[in-house]
Amino acid sequence: MQDKREEATEKLNDLINDIDFAMLTTVDTDGVLRSRPMSTQKAEFDGTLWFFTNDATHKVDEIERDNRVNVSYAKPEDNVYVSVSGAASISKDRQKMEELWNPILKAWFPKGLDDPHISLLRVDVEQAEYWDSPSSTLVQIVGFVKAIVTGKPANGGENEKVTF
Amino acid sequence: MQDKREEATEKLNDLINDIDFAMLTTVDTDGVLRSRPMSTQKAEFDGTLWFFTNDATHKVDEIERDNRVNVSYAKPEDNVYVSVSGAASISKDRQKMEELWNPILKAWFPKGLDDPHISLLRVDVEQAEYWDSPSSTLVQIVGFVKAIVTGKPANGGENEKVTF
Repeated sequence: MQDKREEATEKLNDLINDIDFAMLTTVDTDGVLRSRPMSTQKAEFDGTLWFFTNDATHKVDEIERDNRVNVSYAKPEDNVYVSVSGAASISKDRQKMEELWNPILKAWFPKGLDDPHISLLRVDVEQAEYWDSPSSTLVQIVGFVKAIVTGKPANGGENEKVTF
Repeated sequence: MQDKREEATEKLNDLINDIDFAMLTTVDTDGVLRSRPMSTQKAEFDGTLWFFTNDATHKVDEIERDNRVNVSYAKPEDNVYVSVSGAASISKDRQKMEELWNPILKAWFPKGLDDPHISLLRVDVEQAEYWDSPSSTLVQIVGFVKAIVTGKPANGGENEKVTF
């Protein structure tokens, strides 16, 4: 079981580690589903997703009301699409922030870790799915969509449903 | 008001009309948010989004239980990210299918419109947001994220919240 999770974590890391922005979908009041781009972490994925955020933003209110989120990663040029379902929470863990901090974040947080609103949005992954075709010929597209429909591995592509 | 909507429709069309796949997020049983890639329509966007789908798939069950969806479009190379919130429904409107049919869909539906499971997933757009920076320098990225945080137009980017 541990091996399966490790394998899954490694696979997800391979898929998402060079995607700079993900779309985070949350449930707004009145049940409206909203998404927005989020800058992804530069550190390796180890089973938990982390994003820097400002705790005065609307999405933080949404998460505090309803912590169910989806994080989707798209890399159209490689025909890679990833769906991650999980539970989100806001963290002020200074040590974790120091670990994940990278200079590019200065653009959003000029004061760095001393910004009073800097926070981490943590997503505990509960389910992950991906569509991965090595090339974008019509055959792989068929396989890719078959994978969506059946949830089974398809011609030229892979689709594993991973429960964390 | 009509002008505003027309303008919004035109703007959204400009943003999404060359993006081949969108991520559709639905609410599964137990409130789990799931997303999957959907092939986007080739016809111009006129205020309603249409996707071909197989009515025997899990997402159709999800939509019948809970019709709130989010459709996100990402075009990383141009730094364009779009969030569309709406209400989804399944349609068997043959005339609409004929209008939207294009030969590439044969890959998913070899029998074409005679496939007994071929259906349209219709999304009535209720809210749309986008992040659009003309280039990907650090300045535009700051503007782009400021736009997320404040919901207001920012340095080098645009972010209009559009209510349909």
